[in-house]
Parts: sequence; C-alpha cells; structure tokens
Amino acid sequence: MIYLDNAATTPLDKEAGEIYLNFASNDFFNPSAIYSKSINIFNEIEITKECIAKHLGTNFDNNIIFTASATEANNLAIRGAYRKNFGKMLFSIGEHPSVYNVAMELKKQGANIDFINLQPSGEIDYLDLENKLSNDVSFISVMFCSNETGAINDLKRISDLKNKYCPKAILHSDGVQAFGKLKINVEYFGIDLFTISAHKTFGPKGIGALYVKNKNIINPIIFGGGQEYNLRSGTENVPAILAFKKAILNVGNLKQNYKHVQECCDIFKKEINVTGCKINSSGSPYVLSLSFPGVNGETLVHMMESKNILISRGSACSSKKSGNRILEAMGLSKEDILGSIRISFSKNTTLEETRLAGQILSNCYTELKEKLK
Amino acid sequence: MIYLDNAATTPLDKEAGEIYLNFASNDFFNPSAIYSKSINIFNEIEITKECIAKHLGTNFDNNIIFTASATEANNLAIRGAYRKNFGKMLFSIGEHPSVYNVAMELKKQGANIDFINLQPSGEIDYLDLENKLSNDVSFISVMFCSNETGAINDLKRISDLKNKYCPKAILHSDGVQAFGKLKINVEYFGIDLFTISAHKTFGPKGIGALYVKNKNIINPIIFGGGQEYNLRSGTENVPAILAFKKAILNVGNLKQNYKHVQECCDIFKKEINVTGCKINSSGSPYVLSLSFPGVNGETLVHMMESKNILISRGSACSSKKSGNRILEAMGLSKEDILGSIRISFSKNTTLEETRLAGQILSNCYTELKEKLK
Repeated sequence: MIYLDNAATTPLDKEAGEIYLNFASNDFFNPSAIYSKSINIFNEIEITKECIAKHLGTNFDNNIIFTASATEANNLAIRGAYRKNFGKMLFSIGEHPSVYNVAMELKKQGANIDFINLQPSGEIDYLDLENKLSNDVSFISVMFCSNETGAINDLKRISDLKNKYCPKAILHSDGVQAFGKLKINVEYFGIDLFTISAHKTFGPKGIGALYVKNKNIINPIIFGGGQEYNLRSGTENVPAILAFKKAILNVGNLKQNYKHVQECCDIFKKEINVTGCKINSSGSPYVLSLSFPGVNGETLVHMMESKNILISRGSACSSKKSGNRILEAMGLSKEDILGSIRISFSKNTTLEETRLAGQILSNCYTELKEKLK
Repeated sequence: MIYLDNAATTPLDKEAGEIYLNFASNDFFNPSAIYSKSINIFNEIEITKECIAKHLGTNFDNNIIFTASATEANNLAIRGAYRKNFGKMLFSIGEHPSVYNVAMELKKQGANIDFINLQPSGEIDYLDLENKLSNDVSFISVMFCSNETGAINDLKRISDLKNKYCPKAILHSDGVQAFGKLKINVEYFGIDLFTISAHKTFGPKGIGALYVKNKNIINPIIFGGGQEYNLRSGTENVPAILAFKKAILNVGNLKQNYKHVQECCDIFKKEINVTGCKINSSGSPYVLSLSFPGVNGETLVHMMESKNILISRGSACSSKKSGNRILEAMGLSKEDILGSIRISFSKNTTLEETRLAGQILSNCYTELKEKLK
C-alpha cells in the first residue's frame, strides 16, 4: 500500500508505541494522585511540555496545555478567549472546520465575526486583512499551513500588521500541518495561541496541545478537577503525552525531511503532468492539491484505492461534505473543485512510491476521461 | 507493589494494549476519509458503540458519543443541555468535580442551580430531592456510584420522582465508578444522559463516552469537522476506542467480580479493625472510605507508599485540594475528614494483597498515633 494521505493522519511511530504501552500498563498512575509514583508521572508530563515548547521556539513557562485534539485546542483558543464585549474577531476563510465552525457558532451567538479572503495561491489576502484591521479587533486567527493546499501564511507579517492596528488583539494560529514539518518560532512570529496535534506527525491520536503565551487570556471550556492549570480538566492522557514526546524526538531533522518531501512533491508533479491537470497549491510540499477537470475527484480516490494507493478528496474533516470552501475562496471553478484531490506526503514517503503513484494517477485520469467521453 | 487506587485509574488490559497498537500502527486511517479502509474503521467504531450500548442495558441507536474523558462527557451532558431560559438545575452535592465545577461555572453565568444534600451513608437525601423538585426543574444530575465513598444512588427512585414532579426534566448520571463494576440499565433507570470512562476499568486513558437517549437534548461544546453526529468534533481516537471495547469484553462476569471484590473489602475492613478507625462507606465494595482520627490521611498515604502499597487521600481529581466536600456533606467531623483515606479495589486485587495491605495500614496507624502522642 502507498499511503499519501498523511495530512489526514499518520501511523504511530514504533518507539512511540512502545512508550505508550509502557505508560499505559506499568507507569499507569493518575498524575493527580499524591503519592510519589504519581508525582514522577506528573514530572514526565512537564518534561514533555518543555520538549514541545522548545520545538515551538520558546521556553517552557507553564505555557503548554494538553488537549484531546487540535480541534479541542482550537476550540479552547477561540471560545476560551471570547468574552462579553469582545471586539471584532477575524478569521481566515481558509481555516480548518475546527476554527471555521467555531467562528460560525460564535457568530450565531452574536459575536462580531469577519473573514479574511484568500489569494489564488491559498495564502490569505494581506491587503484584505489590513483593510479589516482596526483598534476594534480583539482576535485574529490565521493558520500557519493549510491542510487543504499546503499554502503557508506569513505569520510574522500578520503579527506586524496586528501590532500596527490593534496591538492588544490576540493572535491565534492553527499550526497542525506545520508542527514536525516546518520551523516554528512563536516568539518571532508574535503569536499568542498556537495549536498543534500529535497524530499528524507520527504521534498518537487523542492528543493535541495549545501554546498559550499568557494564560490570563483564555478561560477553560472543560471544567472539572483543575488539571492543566485549571484550563482543561480531565485525567491527563499520560501514555499519549509521553508517546507524543517520542514521536517529536523521532521526527528528526526538519530541513532534511523538507528537502526529501520537496523532492517527492516535485517528482509527483512531474509524473502527473497530463493534459488538463492543474496544481492548486504552492507552499509546503507536504500537501499537494490537484484538479482534474471533467472528472469527479471522489472517483479518482476510489480508483486509486483499487490500485492500493490512498489519496484523499481533501481534508478528512470536510471530505464527506460537498463543495470546498477553501478552493472556492481561491477562485477555483466548480469543475476544478469537483475534480480536486489532495496528495499528502510524509518524511517516510519514498521517491519510488511517489513516482509510481504519480504514474498510476495519470493513468487513472486518462482512463476515466476516456470512459466519460 | 500492591495497588489499591483503582478508582483513580487502572492499568491497561494487556489484550486491549495489543489492539491499541494494531489500530495505531496498521489500521491507523482517519475514519472521516472516504476510502474503504477508512469506512471499515468507521464501522469498527460503530461496533464498539453497539457493545457499549449493550453494557448500558440498551440498544445502539446512534446514542453513544465518544469523548476524550468522562470529564468531557460530563461537561457535554450538562453544558450541552443548558440553554437560555432553562429551568432549575439540581445536582447532588456529592458529585465529582467534573460535574460539581460545571454546575458552579453555570451558576456564575446566571443559571439557576441548587444542590441535593447527602445522607450520612453518602447516598443523596431523597426527601431533600423531592422537596426541591417542581415542574420548574429542567435538569437533574446524580451520580450512580460515588468515587469518594462507593455510595450507590437509587437511580430508578430518582427517575420515578422526576417523572412525578417534572417529567420533562433531563436526568443525567455520572456512571464512571459503576461501568464495568455494577449492572447498568439506563432504560430501566429512566436515564437521559449517562457518562462512562475507559481508564477506570482497564481501558485506555483519553477515552470516555456519553449515552444520549435523544440527541436533540444537547448541543456540542466542541465544534469542528462534525464527527460524532455533529455533537463532538475531532478525529476519532480509533486505537483507544477499539482498545476500550476489548477492555469491556475482558472485564468478565460482573457478578463474580463483585463477589470477589466484596470479599476483598470485607477482609480489609476486618484487618483494619483497630481502635478508632471509622468506615465511611457502604454501597459498592470497589470503593472504601476510612477515617483514622488523630492523624493526617496524607501521612498515611505516604507511609503506605514507603511500604509499596498505593492508596489515596480521596478522589485524585480533588486530592490536592484541602477539605473534602463530600465527606463534609455526609456530616463527618473535621478530624475524621483530615484522617480520611480511600482504598479502591479491582477485580484483579487478590485476597492476599488485601489482607497484607489491611494489616500494614493498621500498623501504620498504630505507629503514627504512637509518634504523635
């Protein structure tokens, strides 16, 4: 099987799996208990947070909050920050559903929500952002790297604009598709809240985290035993947290991985260089959005699966829905959206797999077009 | 090591761990994707829900929602049900912090909240409940089995009272300490919302569930990709869900386990039959609350750990806080609360471990009292 849906999820790193089992079976204690075996576990969680902070380009200062997913972290960032008499909240129209649908929910509840347009490249339209900035803006959320297209937003430029027009506004970024792939520096970026996930980069499912520059800016959305600085209650998922650490450490050299994935992406683009195929993305080579006009992307996904290659229709979280808000915002035609698919690589994708998958996809498209003639 | 803090958490069942690893490493696909490998995974989730529904005494009818923890399930039940112009909400004063603190938060937000007193046994005071019931009540939350004392509330009696005074009110029960230990029948009980957790009964951490009789009565508290019938977004924690199923199946015969744990509990009570020790609990033999007047329970916990026996001060989720709301509500003196500890057994606790731990605890208490003279 050739797996090219790494933006949806990845298999658990083998050593991370061993760590998981050890902490699930042997060092399984509840870190909130008062005996020293529990305190040791609690300290292991802290060490994991230090590791994450370092990979986010900052020091650990009780500024990492574990959640059960990036979705929950995005909810905590946005709904946790929202309060009475909040000013305008700006969201990129290209956000993942776990940001976009929270924005829509807050809008229903009466919040002042506005969206930032995208450029045809998939990046946000910085001029549109600048036009919408004023000292009435309280919150801005723009993802670092798009899960649909790989487009990379210039967070530094966004925070500079924020500091010019509304320095007190909170800047949130969903960094799920960047963590473990692109260099992150929340301090240099000037970010207040940053969301990450484990399972998109060979960590376990069921664990995400939110970087919080200043804990005072958010309230909890899950109440209870007071874990995670009283900002996210629930027994800590220790095995997943420790496995996450191992997965982070095993990602290896980001630059080398990037170079390899860039090569995969280039090879793939070359192989699928058939008449009509359009490349929708630029930015991170980890995510490649393509359009095959005249066919249905879903059919291509199924044809590819019949040949043991897994690709996707787009974000798993929205793949079952019709249309594609993000490609639409980039200005793609209905036909190009209907014929769109997403290929997503990982550091473990081989050049040979890439070549083969690209060739097979080309053949599938040609075959399908013939059939539809 | 003798582990007697099973109400805080339990080690992962060995076979459940193998299942976890298989779904984390091999069948790791995102169930929201559209290819058939993902659809297969999605079906496995459904089968797990069927298994859970059966163990809750009902049929599966899209009425099980997976969450990351019982804490989240309790939050979803209560905050998900709460809406504008909601009537009075009644909570047992003996609830876990993930219920009690949600109630306190809603109170802060202006909700009409009242609490039901406890009897000295730890059960709710049914007369107090009846006095507080009226057709203005919209929501009632009473746990099935107390995590602090093992006290079992008569859910059938509560729902009968509810049906008499406020038939339209929603009845929620936190069943965390009951699931996998006591027979549950949500239909017979007349329950609308029922919370369970995996890690209290040899399942993985990071997975809980909420039984929802009628999905219309709650709104989501986490928004995003629309998983779990649009009531709880986030990539499904497939390995944990499937491991949870295995853990449930491996619990074995509830009656036999109960009989065994009852024997453990009886032996323990007999062994710690030293002057002054008071037994605070009756109800489930899985949880035994004791008071040792004149000493600090925390000191006992540490002394016991130095002898390789893990017991607890009380609920892990509140063990780091001073006082004990539940024991207080049962009418215990300050001295008895200060000297309280919690012993919690599992089906895997042996009679020999129990005997030894009881003897050692007696010796510790005697030793400590001598020291303090």
